[in-house]
Amino acid sequence: MSLVVVGSVAYDGVETPHGRVDRMLGGAATYISLAASYFTKTRLVAIVGEDFAPEDTEFLISRQVDLEGLERVPGKTFFWAGKYSDDMNDRETLVTDLNVFAGFNPKIPDSYKRDPYLFLGNIQPALQRSVRSQMNGLRLAGGDTMNFWIKDYRADLLATIAEWDFLLINDSEARMLSGHWNLKHAAAAILDLGPHTLIIKRGEHGAMLFRRDSFFVVPGYLLEDVFDPTGAGDCFAGGFMGSLAECGFDLADGRVTRGELSRAVIYGSVLGSFCCERFGVERFRTLTRAEIDARFEEFRAFTSF
Amino acid sequence: MSLVVVGSVAYDGVETPHGRVDRMLGGAATYISLAASYFTKTRLVAIVGEDFAPEDTEFLISRQVDLEGLERVPGKTFFWAGKYSDDMNDRETLVTDLNVFAGFNPKIPDSYKRDPYLFLGNIQPALQRSVRSQMNGLRLAGGDTMNFWIKDYRADLLATIAEWDFLLINDSEARMLSGHWNLKHAAAAILDLGPHTLIIKRGEHGAMLFRRDSFFVVPGYLLEDVFDPTGAGDCFAGGFMGSLAECGFDLADGRVTRGELSRAVIYGSVLGSFCCERFGVERFRTLTRAEIDARFEEFRAFTSF
Repeated sequence: MSLVVVGSVAYDGVETPHGRVDRMLGGAATYISLAASYFTKTRLVAIVGEDFAPEDTEFLISRQVDLEGLERVPGKTFFWAGKYSDDMNDRETLVTDLNVFAGFNPKIPDSYKRDPYLFLGNIQPALQRSVRSQMNGLRLAGGDTMNFWIKDYRADLLATIAEWDFLLINDSEARMLSGHWNLKHAAAAILDLGPHTLIIKRGEHGAMLFRRDSFFVVPGYLLEDVFDPTGAGDCFAGGFMGSLAECGFDLADGRVTRGELSRAVIYGSVLGSFCCERFGVERFRTLTRAEIDARFEEFRAFTSF
Repeated sequence: MSLVVVGSVAYDGVETPHGRVDRMLGGAATYISLAASYFTKTRLVAIVGEDFAPEDTEFLISRQVDLEGLERVPGKTFFWAGKYSDDMNDRETLVTDLNVFAGFNPKIPDSYKRDPYLFLGNIQPALQRSVRSQMNGLRLAGGDTMNFWIKDYRADLLATIAEWDFLLINDSEARMLSGHWNLKHAAAAILDLGPHTLIIKRGEHGAMLFRRDSFFVVPGYLLEDVFDPTGAGDCFAGGFMGSLAECGFDLADGRVTRGELSRAVIYGSVLGSFCCERFGVERFRTLTRAEIDARFEEFRAFTSF
């Protein structure tokens, strides 16, 4: 079952204690699509400039990502650069050049419009709403957002997520959106805003999934070395959505089991963990589905009692 | 199977966003003993002053804690006061009056000396070593420490934990002791120091158990309201040790299963979570074993997939 992913495709400059890369393929939609591609046909909607390299296009195609919705326009591709702290729990943004991304107005190709799964990466809430309205026959739609939209575009964001099945954000965003520090209270408040499912990412501390009648918590995977955490949260989103789409799950209330959702959270955690093992998207050049499934079983081994 | 607990018994003054108590029963050994008392006969070794209240003695006795090793001397009982930050992730120490605790030189009553289980709360490493040497027939011994001993009494501490079966510390202590930020590397280095089992507490983020050949991770319990986190780590220790002692487990390499240890980590997490629901030791005035076992099953429900 095909998944449509909307968001940023970018070039990133990243410095971590393990090294530095001045320019490499990045962007939320890139990471989400790559992670989801291990589970389902993935179709990208994004915008890049004239500088977008043929080898990056080829890499995405090699992962069977459909690029019909990848718009190419005059100008430069979105560029972001950041530097991580020694413990990699904080990062400082050094450069944000929106470039062609500033004029992004997502247009869904006709061939995508009847796809059942939609993940809306972190872009302006009004654009996310416009994308959703272009889709017919969605079985499951949701996405991500960030502090900027929560703070300065609140009304717009609330109208947008009211139409979503799920919201996938991190803990500080959940606290900001709900006004509650306690995550159980925050989750209850957010489930009142529309989505029937909330996933809260906690970085190295794992993730939680909340619905009205149940919740599920998984600790983070303990990596020997974290080379570069960039994109890990997006890969979580890709693994989560991809695994639900793979099995054709329908997240409408009462139609998906707790077991199916828990598996999706684990697959999200698995993909996020692999992402950190190399700089940027490098790990996805060699990663196999067999490795993914082996790590899924590792999660079972170290969490079951 | 009886458990001997050595450490501080104190009075605490605590302020959290939920309120303030100027003086209440506290101290690591108090919390450890109370938590362990739901699983096994617990015998306390500690020191208090003339101000130690009869109702506090009675409360410990009501939980079947053996007080033969509770020394009473002229002077005042150890007093500590602290104030928690709004999110309760940080606390500021306002008062530390060691009082009679400054002269604590633990003497093990003859009736305790052949007990098989020993938990050494956070006191001077040389005193911990002296206690261990007074015991005959230990099946499982270990304990806690803190940044002060790790930094300024390192040689003493290393000689002490070299004789332990397990070490139970928090993540920042594990990093400081090992010199490794990455917890997998930190654990490997600490297991080289003697203990065959390492438990790392991560507060609201749960706990991890490491042995050479396996590890186990549990996320934290999501409380609706954290009234007072004081003592939660000590209650974890009490639940962990208590549940191992209850079943007569032997933690020597090869003699205890991963399943038994994982259950002990879950019982530790359960007791730590109950502790936070009221100020100080209040929750233990009403807590029942049935509630503990019900929460144990809740852990299974929200972590299994």
